[in-house]
Amino acid sequence: MVVADLVVVGSVALDSVTTPFGKVTEALGGSATYFAYAASFFTPVHVVAAVGEDFPREHLDLLSHRGVGIEALSVLAGKKTFRWTGEYGFDLNEARTLDTQLNAFAEFKPSLEARQRAAPFLFLANIDPDLQLDVRRQMANPLLTALDTMNFWIEGKRESLLRVLREVDVLIINDAEARMLAGEPNLVKAARAIIDLGPRVVVIKRGEYGSVLVSDGEFFFAPAYPLENVFDPTGAGDTFAGGFMGYLAQQGLTDRASVRRAMVFGAVMASFAVEDFSLERLKRLARREIEQRYAAFQRMVSVEQ
Amino acid sequence: MVVADLVVVGSVALDSVTTPFGKVTEALGGSATYFAYAASFFTPVHVVAAVGEDFPREHLDLLSHRGVGIEALSVLAGKKTFRWTGEYGFDLNEARTLDTQLNAFAEFKPSLEARQRAAPFLFLANIDPDLQLDVRRQMANPLLTALDTMNFWIEGKRESLLRVLREVDVLIINDAEARMLAGEPNLVKAARAIIDLGPRVVVIKRGEYGSVLVSDGEFFFAPAYPLENVFDPTGAGDTFAGGFMGYLAQQGLTDRASVRRAMVFGAVMASFAVEDFSLERLKRLARREIEQRYAAFQRMVSVEQ
Repeated sequence: MVVADLVVVGSVALDSVTTPFGKVTEALGGSATYFAYAASFFTPVHVVAAVGEDFPREHLDLLSHRGVGIEALSVLAGKKTFRWTGEYGFDLNEARTLDTQLNAFAEFKPSLEARQRAAPFLFLANIDPDLQLDVRRQMANPLLTALDTMNFWIEGKRESLLRVLREVDVLIINDAEARMLAGEPNLVKAARAIIDLGPRVVVIKRGEYGSVLVSDGEFFFAPAYPLENVFDPTGAGDTFAGGFMGYLAQQGLTDRASVRRAMVFGAVMASFAVEDFSLERLKRLARREIEQRYAAFQRMVSVEQ
Repeated sequence: MVVADLVVVGSVALDSVTTPFGKVTEALGGSATYFAYAASFFTPVHVVAAVGEDFPREHLDLLSHRGVGIEALSVLAGKKTFRWTGEYGFDLNEARTLDTQLNAFAEFKPSLEARQRAAPFLFLANIDPDLQLDVRRQMANPLLTALDTMNFWIEGKRESLLRVLREVDVLIINDAEARMLAGEPNLVKAARAIIDLGPRVVVIKRGEYGSVLVSDGEFFFAPAYPLENVFDPTGAGDTFAGGFMGYLAQQGLTDRASVRRAMVFGAVMASFAVEDFSLERLKRLARREIEQRYAAFQRMVSVEQ
């Protein structure tokens, strides 16, 4: 075990979320937050992001106490924190965005310090692809860079997105967005088309159906952990990515077997995140529970037990 | 390998199907047909069904030459064969039924012969649950009985369905119908509720997302084989069941590992069925291709290869 540094650039936000099971107002959220909190169970992780001066001190303390590096989490004077308001219907499969306020993110110009630039693992969470490329180019020579994106950037900043895709190793994306990016309804063909754009590995998230990894001539399927109670899917994808990248950075490896194990750790972390609002379940999570659920996963996919 | 007899009761039909990739008119179809053809790659299988005198001789010959027992496939004088007309949209996930003519099935009273009554494996394909129960009760003492059903019977003949469910070991059902049967949107809870109705194992089919087995305290996930070209999903579920039951009957076993392997053989058989209309792909299928795709499946779910 090498335990390599991991850097994430993405949003740190205040989320207001309504699900059929309850609601929260201005709870801690954001792609970089979920990612880093999940990854912190595996490896040192550093957040590159901006918040406003209204960002509660307790949230910064929560991340620090968890060991998340917040040296590059800028608190911008005179600005407000990024806010997202959304709701889910009974099937919990897709969020309906009611409001987005970029605030501090609108003019964020990240500047990485030496330790972050030297990190071997980098995750470009779902933000403006120009910002993703800026961060990618500040890095010295990462061993593995992964990227997430969404329909908003695929449609609105396609050229920028294609530019940064040429410089990443792994694309982590949901199935509808994979189809949209490739302009191809068949998921296998879509994944192959994306590999032609740059990434050597495509990890497609399929919500309650789990995830599938596609690389040259190879597939790997990881189911979603079967849960009796899903409270709030917000952050599930970022938590998946945090478990995935956190495990790889912890191992300092990018070989095929490690990437497969990382998929399962991603699914494990996401399965906890959705059991409560915001980071509540992750805050109560013990390392032992991660190991238990990982072992349960193995039993659920293994033909010869 | 024991190679035990397998009996299926279900429809033998003439299907007219339109997909975005083409259409067929009055092609060989029906739940028992797909099931038996798939199972015939593994074990002796006998079809209990009725067709009209308009049923083409070539279809009977096709089944016979494949080794499918048609002694209990009644050709009813003065009747027409069951006909189904349906179409699929671009996502291929759900058929829209345009027309159903029960014809020969409307007053079908099956009568099993001695060899069929003694068979250790029985599949009650998707037909009237009263007919399913009738066949179940004609059987001597099957080692394993599995049943499929659909929304039409869940809503229209619930009491009959609950009666036959008490006498089966395995329910093979799609996810929407599992939720409907249990009256429970969460799939894990729905499966547990169904187990309380009688079956000790529930196999939930999730279309392009594969299938999941639920039994007391156990889950097993089998992905769908990733295909670049899906032509026609008609019969995929019955072909899955044919591979599943065919493998178990071939082995003469119902233990946990055999059931898991059977799920994968089910997925393998279904993956071939959808590559062309009607039984066209299965007619060109070689045993070697089944083994190859089974091996590929193993590689796609195994973390430690």
